[in-house]
Amino acid sequence: MSEVAGRLAIEATGTALKRYTGGRGLLIGGVPGVQPARMVVIGGGVVGTHAARMAAGLGAEVTIIDRSIPRLRELDEWFEGRVRTRFSTIDSVEEEVFTADVVIGAVLVPGTSAPKLVSRKMLSSMRRGSVIVDVATDQGGCFETSHPTTHADPTYEVDGAIHYCVANMPGAVPQTSSHALNNETLPFGLALANKGFAAVFETPHLRSGLNVYRGRLTYKAVAESLGLPFSPIEHAAA
Amino acid sequence: MSEVAGRLAIEATGTALKRYTGGRGLLIGGVPGVQPARMVVIGGGVVGTHAARMAAGLGAEVTIIDRSIPRLRELDEWFEGRVRTRFSTIDSVEEEVFTADVVIGAVLVPGTSAPKLVSRKMLSSMRRGSVIVDVATDQGGCFETSHPTTHADPTYEVDGAIHYCVANMPGAVPQTSSHALNNETLPFGLALANKGFAAVFETPHLRSGLNVYRGRLTYKAVAESLGLPFSPIEHAAA
Amino acid sequence: MSEVAGRLAIEATGTALKRYTGGRGLLIGGVPGVQPARMVVIGGGVVGTHAARMAAGLGAEVTIIDRSIPRLRELDEWFEGRVRTRFSTIDSVEEEVFTADVVIGAVLVPGTSAPKLVSRKMLSSMRRGSVIVDVATDQGGCFETSHPTTHADPTYEVDGAIHYCVANMPGAVPQTSSHALNNETLPFGLALANKGFAAVFETPHLRSGLNVYRGRLTYKAVAESLGLPFSPIEHAAA
Amino acid sequence: MSEVAGRLAIEATGTALKRYTGGRGLLIGGVPGVQPARMVVIGGGVVGTHAARMAAGLGAEVTIIDRSIPRLRELDEWFEGRVRTRFSTIDSVEEEVFTADVVIGAVLVPGTSAPKLVSRKMLSSMRRGSVIVDVATDQGGCFETSHPTTHADPTYEVDGAIHYCVANMPGAVPQTSSHALNNETLPFGLALANKGFAAVFETPHLRSGLNVYRGRLTYKAVAESLGLPFSPIEHAAA
Amino acid sequence: MSEVAGRLAIEATGTALKRYTGGRGLLIGGVPGVQPARMVVIGGGVVGTHAARMAAGLGAEVTIIDRSIPRLRELDEWFEGRVRTRFSTIDSVEEEVFTADVVIGAVLVPGTSAPKLVSRKMLSSMRRGSVIVDVATDQGGCFETSHPTTHADPTYEVDGAIHYCVANMPGAVPQTSSHALNNETLPFGLALANKGFAAVFETPHLRSGLNVYRGRLTYKAVAESLGLPFSPIEHAAA
Amino acid sequence: MSEVAGRLAIEATGTALKRYTGGRGLLIGGVPGVQPARMVVIGGGVVGTHAARMAAGLGAEVTIIDRSIPRLRELDEWFEGRVRTRFSTIDSVEEEVFTADVVIGAVLVPGTSAPKLVSRKMLSSMRRGSVIVDVATDQGGCFETSHPTTHADPTYEVDGAIHYCVANMPGAVPQTSSHALNNETLPFGLALANKGFAAVFETPHLRSGLNVYRGRLTYKAVAESLGLPFSPIEHAAA
Repeated sequence: MSEVAGRLAIEATGTALKRYTGGRGLLIGGVPGVQPARMVVIGGGVVGTHAARMAAGLGAEVTIIDRSIPRLRELDEWFEGRVRTRFSTIDSVEEEVFTADVVIGAVLVPGTSAPKLVSRKMLSSMRRGSVIVDVATDQGGCFETSHPTTHADPTYEVDGAIHYCVANMPGAVPQTSSHALNNETLPFGLALANKGFAAVFETPHLRSGLNVYRGRLTYKAVAESLGLPFSPIEHAAA
Repeated sequence: MSEVAGRLAIEATGTALKRYTGGRGLLIGGVPGVQPARMVVIGGGVVGTHAARMAAGLGAEVTIIDRSIPRLRELDEWFEGRVRTRFSTIDSVEEEVFTADVVIGAVLVPGTSAPKLVSRKMLSSMRRGSVIVDVATDQGGCFETSHPTTHADPTYEVDGAIHYCVANMPGAVPQTSSHALNNETLPFGLALANKGFAAVFETPHLRSGLNVYRGRLTYKAVAESLGLPFSPIEHAAA
Repeated sequence: MSEVAGRLAIEATGTALKRYTGGRGLLIGGVPGVQPARMVVIGGGVVGTHAARMAAGLGAEVTIIDRSIPRLRELDEWFEGRVRTRFSTIDSVEEEVFTADVVIGAVLVPGTSAPKLVSRKMLSSMRRGSVIVDVATDQGGCFETSHPTTHADPTYEVDGAIHYCVANMPGAVPQTSSHALNNETLPFGLALANKGFAAVFETPHLRSGLNVYRGRLTYKAVAESLGLPFSPIEHAAA
Repeated sequence: MSEVAGRLAIEATGTALKRYTGGRGLLIGGVPGVQPARMVVIGGGVVGTHAARMAAGLGAEVTIIDRSIPRLRELDEWFEGRVRTRFSTIDSVEEEVFTADVVIGAVLVPGTSAPKLVSRKMLSSMRRGSVIVDVATDQGGCFETSHPTTHADPTYEVDGAIHYCVANMPGAVPQTSSHALNNETLPFGLALANKGFAAVFETPHLRSGLNVYRGRLTYKAVAESLGLPFSPIEHAAA
Repeated sequence: MSEVAGRLAIEATGTALKRYTGGRGLLIGGVPGVQPARMVVIGGGVVGTHAARMAAGLGAEVTIIDRSIPRLRELDEWFEGRVRTRFSTIDSVEEEVFTADVVIGAVLVPGTSAPKLVSRKMLSSMRRGSVIVDVATDQGGCFETSHPTTHADPTYEVDGAIHYCVANMPGAVPQTSSHALNNETLPFGLALANKGFAAVFETPHLRSGLNVYRGRLTYKAVAESLGLPFSPIEHAAA
Repeated sequence: MSEVAGRLAIEATGTALKRYTGGRGLLIGGVPGVQPARMVVIGGGVVGTHAARMAAGLGAEVTIIDRSIPRLRELDEWFEGRVRTRFSTIDSVEEEVFTADVVIGAVLVPGTSAPKLVSRKMLSSMRRGSVIVDVATDQGGCFETSHPTTHADPTYEVDGAIHYCVANMPGAVPQTSSHALNNETLPFGLALANKGFAAVFETPHLRSGLNVYRGRLTYKAVAESLGLPFSPIEHAAA
């Protein structure tokens, strides 16, 4: 699903940049002789990487910001100079947001709220009609100013920045999403069908995904995020 | 402008393919393990080439159809196997449209009506929710079923195919379009400013663009298309 | 050796597709304006990946089918849209085989018989003169209809499909194969030379490759495949 | 047809390099850690360029030799460092042939005999089992030692070099070749069908292709090559 | 020679950017996580294109400025998004120079002085230690502040900008340069050797390169640049 | 730092190859029609990989030699045929050095002296003016003939080979190097600032980097290289 969301983020960007939605009226990739959009992707995980691939494929000028040097190295090898990589510090985020036409927020920490990476104050330094796409909307959003929107009415403006914060983005392409989901979950479905609930204990991925068991919270990040007591699955099942 | 229109055609495709507009619910480039959209671009000129570049950049499976073998060779060299090229015959158009998720009509003949390449009957063989983008809407359209729409209400459905036929597509990205137009027209503007109307006679591009002079039609394709008598500029000016 | 076999599979394909061997008379990569061969590679391991690289390098339209999503993601990153990836289900295999000009069987499970992926019935739906290349011939083959052939007489026909099932394919390029083998085995040879048989116990790769020790079968897959009792090396050596 | 022949030349190379045909037993592209074949393509026209693309696509180390600097520049731009280009002098041909595993002769001068570029003496400096592919066999061949062979018995050996000199190479892939030929000739066929023989005079390509008219030789290169008097078509038709 | 000069310009840039020559202490391509140098190439002819290729090959962020839209389109096709193209206006030059770490002046007008594209005032807005490479030094230079230097002492500083303005840059790589020159001039040398001075009149390239004939200036640009009367070669030879 | 050093090695090569430093007078990437430099990179780690990327980016003909087959496979996948990979044996090193214009020594074994890979005798077989760049100078160098030089006087000649052996190469580009170093070390700095010396025991990277603790040598390679007794950190801290 992260791959679908990351790729859709760039289609969303195209829509939000158009003049009739209040955007800067820019074509993502420009044309020969005319500058492309300058795009910053915050977060170099699956979402951010797929967003960057699509943006580069359309001709944008793209920078990925991440706080893991080994990950930046991998990205640098894949993109072979087509996308810039930059280490994440408060300074580098500010500097890149300041000159960007588009900021993609692609920071997800599973099971917990997304960190707020871009403050309202930072936004105010951007040019009028710049675009913010928040792919972490389902988990609280990674911009201070983001709140969930829908495919029917996807954008709103704050301080001149067009925000695209649709929750459940992959819902717009159900054919692709359902195949992607099936491919991922088929082995687990088969395990459950063959072995019943016992499969949860035998399959590490299923076990580690269990949130509640016999009334106890067995997923650490959720427990911490809600301030409730956490029971490791081994204890809860004992 | 053709470059802008060709590139925008792919952003339009993304929008039209979404489920909430009635499309097939496909992501243009698919994701690993899930098939991308199969796209046919009819016409390998500037519009079609830029459309194909963007589509390939997003990961689609793209075929360009054109009736010029030298042009197909050039395209084959540029795309290095990333985009397929196919010679245009009635058979090849039918075969490609039949298996396509998206058909981009990119055939423009300057000053005359676009030829109707895809009949309503051909459309009926496509899968429900397939997408038709007509970049030649301003000149009558290259699908039998296309008629102009607007950015506010861009799509309509005929026989299950979603049609995107916005006239003046580049109007959605005025910042990019106006720079592109300025870059193209600046030399002619300077020529007119410096030499006045005389520039029209001295500058081949301006002269060949003249439509009417002293009440006579001096542009052959327009004259033929309207069934009016044509006067070469040399005669009209004599 | 898998790399050599995978790469040779595409040279074999070129030969088998030619008219004088009974093939469809297709050039793998087509030429500008003429469609390339549509090729399906079943199995995204080393054999399949190298086969796909060569096929894409010649201009074919290639799809790799595999049942591991993480592997399909890696392949998608390497090929950057040049090769399609598809998740392996009975449906997807049938659908791809049905429209393919060439099917490469590249599924190897070390030490055991290759699974039969394509049935004789599936073959019958392919066009006359289509090509089947079985890289798993040495281990029983992964097509129902495949049986080993030789470099001297490499192909035979079943239901109109040309089968290329040469056992020991790398034997055709001994200079490349022997260097590849030396590079792989040199460290083990040196270990054996320096330490004698003791090296087998000290070197994990050697130990895990031991098939029989003191009259006991110490390689699990072989034992299972032959229905004989299996002794872990630790027990056999005790 | 030149595109088909150029591409087939590399499939022929693969076959000829194999040990059981007497070749060096090399895989064209090597494998990681083992050197690929070193290939020289003499002639950077359509045949040579397509041969080089295929060879590079398979991983070979390729040098194109041509005597036109503007052409070498174009090739350098297309291949972006993936294929080396070298200016043709007697020295550079000798130097490259000396270190090559494969030499592709791709020099065609329409309507006349191909020039002999590689002498028997040069061949003798090559390593045993090296491969010579002559794509100009139909016009006399561009190696001193080449004479036409057939698809049934394609290779022979001279001084240790395996020669592949099949005349009418595209005949092996009739489906691709006939489409390619149709695409090229369709416009001329239509012109002849619509206008009869008059089309020959009105269509420059047809006129320049006329060899004999009213008993006179109207194609200069053929006349010179046969030592017969030449009549320009304008005179012959007068 | 232009190709050699353009490529050498990037090696010169690497040297000039180093701290011990007074440069900004930047690595042209940065490393993963650290920004590369931002480079502007003014002029998209042979010199500028080869400079841009090398700079992009090293990982720099490159923009080419040119005043020809058709040329920018060609460059955009070659570089496929790896290098940005921008139309040349006073505004765009200023904007790009202002944010650049390196400016390459690659504007040559054969036989006349290079136009001064970057004024001393523009330079003063650049960051301390930025680098200016002037490839047009031999023809007066295209920066207001440039004057010829030598390989022995190649750089000097003006207003904090390091200037590299070596005249006859290709002299540093005589082996490459002399081969390049031979390849270009060999046909003309042979023509002169075979036909003597008559070759000048029969060979368009030689004739158009003649500067003085029988005491008259036969090269227009030189005549204009020196303010002397110009005689077309046809008149001078009459 | 290894990335910076590897990339700088190619800029150093460019300088050393120039005629005025005694080099062969070659342009690294040649120009169309003229051969590029033939470069061998010994060692496929971070230094060697970045050196190879830069060299390939400039158009050189590059071979990487390494003794790990899995690493050669990774490199082959990244470079996709643009750089050759070769397994390291005494024979292959000799063969490649013999035909090379440039040899980059990029073999580092952390904490110990670099192995001597190229003997003085091997050098003598190279052509006059060939270039040797030793990136392991700080650890004794990996050529028999190398000794440390400085940025002020970077090269010297031995038996006709120009040696570039600057110690602390990254010092030339302090802006890039300091950012790269900060990015790498920031997490460790923060750990030390927050937890004091205790961080060394809690952070595996810090612990494994400790050389001396309470007077005992806790880094194995250093101990062995100096012939002093080694105490694992667990013992030293007990």
